[in-house]
Amino acid sequence: MSAEPPVPETSVLAVASHVVSGHVGNKIAVFVLQSMGCDVSALNTVQFSNHTGYRQWKGTRVSAQEITDLWEGLKQSYLDQFDMMLSGYVPGAAAVEAVGNIAKELKEKSRTKPGSFFWVLDPVMGDNGKLYVADDVVPAYRGLVQHADLILPNQFEAEQLSEVKITDSASLRQAIEVLHTKFNIPHIVITSVSLPLSDSQTTSPNSRTMSVVGSTKTSTGKPRLFKIHFPVFECYFSGTGDMFAALMVVRMREVVHNAGGALSSTTSWLSGDEVAPLDLPLARAAEKVLASMHEVLSRTCESMATETAQAGIVNGLPAGGATLSSEEEEKKRHLLRSRAAELRLVRNLSCLRSPNIEYRAEKM
Amino acid sequence: MSAEPPVPETSVLAVASHVVSGHVGNKIAVFVLQSMGCDVSALNTVQFSNHTGYRQWKGTRVSAQEITDLWEGLKQSYLDQFDMMLSGYVPGAAAVEAVGNIAKELKEKSRTKPGSFFWVLDPVMGDNGKLYVADDVVPAYRGLVQHADLILPNQFEAEQLSEVKITDSASLRQAIEVLHTKFNIPHIVITSVSLPLSDSQTTSPNSRTMSVVGSTKTSTGKPRLFKIHFPVFECYFSGTGDMFAALMVVRMREVVHNAGGALSSTTSWLSGDEVAPLDLPLARAAEKVLASMHEVLSRTCESMATETAQAGIVNGLPAGGATLSSEEEEKKRHLLRSRAAELRLVRNLSCLRSPNIEYRAEKM
Repeated sequence: MSAEPPVPETSVLAVASHVVSGHVGNKIAVFVLQSMGCDVSALNTVQFSNHTGYRQWKGTRVSAQEITDLWEGLKQSYLDQFDMMLSGYVPGAAAVEAVGNIAKELKEKSRTKPGSFFWVLDPVMGDNGKLYVADDVVPAYRGLVQHADLILPNQFEAEQLSEVKITDSASLRQAIEVLHTKFNIPHIVITSVSLPLSDSQTTSPNSRTMSVVGSTKTSTGKPRLFKIHFPVFECYFSGTGDMFAALMVVRMREVVHNAGGALSSTTSWLSGDEVAPLDLPLARAAEKVLASMHEVLSRTCESMATETAQAGIVNGLPAGGATLSSEEEEKKRHLLRSRAAELRLVRNLSCLRSPNIEYRAEKM
Repeated sequence: MSAEPPVPETSVLAVASHVVSGHVGNKIAVFVLQSMGCDVSALNTVQFSNHTGYRQWKGTRVSAQEITDLWEGLKQSYLDQFDMMLSGYVPGAAAVEAVGNIAKELKEKSRTKPGSFFWVLDPVMGDNGKLYVADDVVPAYRGLVQHADLILPNQFEAEQLSEVKITDSASLRQAIEVLHTKFNIPHIVITSVSLPLSDSQTTSPNSRTMSVVGSTKTSTGKPRLFKIHFPVFECYFSGTGDMFAALMVVRMREVVHNAGGALSSTTSWLSGDEVAPLDLPLARAAEKVLASMHEVLSRTCESMATETAQAGIVNGLPAGGATLSSEEEEKKRHLLRSRAAELRLVRNLSCLRSPNIEYRAEKM
C-alpha cells in the first residue's frame, strides 16, 4: 500500500449522518476521505445508535438551527476554508436548506477563483420507488441542485429531481438532459441503474449486473454519456452510496489534479467540448471508485458468510433463540443479518488506495 | 507502510467529544483506531464546531439521558459486543456516570471470560493546576476509576484522583500507590510529568524534556514503576491526550496479543509478579505510543511553521488586519495560531503504523 496520498492537500466539509455502530453516512465517508489524505471537517446531521436498516434505533437529529450554528462557529474562527464539500443524508427540508445555504456561501466565496470549490451532492431521498424522507424534502433539493457541481442520485432520486420516469435508455438520457439544462448541473452520476442498457449486459444466472451512468455536460448543456456495468452482489448492504460518494470526491480531485493544465482552475472542473465521453475525468474517477467498491463489497461478503454461519443465522437462531416467538426470532435474525452486512473497510484499506480496475466506462 | 493491521480483530467503543473542524477527542481517536484496524463504535458526547482551546465555539452537548439511550439502542440490536472501551471527555457528572454505567455493564458481562473486555479511561478533568470541568465531575470519576483497567491521567488529574500532591519522585510514587491500592486500578500511565526525575534528564537549552510514568500493579498491589523521557515541543497542541489514549488502546492490545500464553485471558491483562517493570506490556506499549506521538508532533510543527509564516502571524496579521483593534488583532492571531496547531495526521499515516522507537522505558 502506497504511503503517498492520491490527492494534494484537500480540505473537505462532509455533512451527513453519524451512527455510533456500523458504517453508513459520515461514519464511513469521513474515514474514507481521511484514509485518502483529506483533511475533513465532519458536520453530523444526526447521531443514531445504528442505521435505520436495522428497523430500530435510538438517538437524535440535529436541527436546521444547530447546523447553521455549527457553520457560524466555523466561520467566526476562520475554519471555513474548503476545497470541496460532500453532503449526504440531511433530516428534513429545513435542514436541507440550511446545508444548501452553507454550500451556496462557499460557492459564492469561490466565485473569483474558479475551480477552487467543488460541491458533491448526494440527494438522499429514497430508493426502489419509495421516498424515505418527508415529501417536502424533494422540492427542497430541486431548489438546491443548481448549485451543485456533481450530483449522485440513484435511479429513483434522478426521477424525483428531473420528473422524468426512467424506463429505458431514451428516458434515462432525457432525465440527464433535464438535470444538465433545467438545473444546470455540470456532472451527474446515477449510481444504480437497473435497466438493461445493452445486449452485452445479459443476465447470466451467476452474475446479475447493474450500471452506473454518468455525464459531464458540454458548454451548450449537451450530455456526454457513459455507462459502467458492474456485477451485483446478492446481498443487502447499507452505506454503499455514502462510500461511493466519498470516493468520488477523492477521485475527481485526483483525476482533475493529475490532468494538469487549466482544468482545476475552470469553473466546476468542466472539460472542454473536445473531450469525448470516455475521456472525461468523471469517467476515470467512476472507474476507480467502482473498483474500490467492488473489492470492499467482496471482502464484506466473505466476512458476512463467516459471521452468519458462526451465528447460525442460516439454519436457525443462536443459542437461546428457542425461547423466542417466531416474530421475535425473525426480528433477531434480521438484526444479526444487518450487523453481519456492515461494510468491512478498516481491515481492507488496500482496497481504497490501489484497487484493480476491472470495469471500464463504455459509450451509450 | 504495512497493509497488515497491528492488532487482531478488535471491536472498540470510543466515547468522547466530536468537533466538526480539527483533531481532538473522538475526531482523532476514532481515526487512529480505525487506521490501526479496529472496528470502532463512536459515541460522541458533544458536537462542537471546534475545540475549546480556540476560546470560542458553537454546538451542543449530549445529555446523560441521550448517552444512555444510545447505549440502549446498541443493546437492543445486539451491537454491544466490545473487546475494549476508550472513554475521554464527557460533559458533566451525570454524563460521566452514564458512561461509567456502560463500562460497568460491559465489565460485568465479561466476568466469566477474563481478559475479554478492557476499559481504558482518560479521566479528562483539567491540566496545569486547573479544573476545566464542574467540581462534581471529580468525585464522579473517583467513584468510577475502580472499574477501569488502565487510566491515563495527566499529573494534575492524578493528583485530583489520588488526593496526593505530586511534587517529587516520592509523592509521585505515593499517588500511584494510592491509585493501585485504594482504587484497585491495574494499569496507570501518567501522561505528562514535569518533575525532574533523574540527573540524566537535564534541561538543555535546546530540548526541554517531560516524562510519562507508568505502572502495572503486582498481585499485592505494589507498583512496578517505569518512566520514559521525551523531548517537549515548544508549541501548544490540542488533542495530544486523545491521540495518546487511542494509541494506548491499540498498542496494549497488540503487545498482550503478541505475548501469547495466558496473558490475554487474564483479568485486566495483569502480568505475573515475576515480570519486571521494564518488561511490562504497558512499558512496551507506551514506548510505541510515544514514538508515534513524537513523529506526528514533529510533522505538525513543520506544517505549523509554514502555515503561520504564510498567514504572516509572526510579524503581524494577514491582509485586512489593519482595520482591526489591537484586541481583535490578538484574537484573530490566537484563532489562526490554534488552527495552525491542529494535529497533522491524515497525511502522515506511516507515523502511526511503524514509528521508530527512540525513547525507552527506564527504571525509577
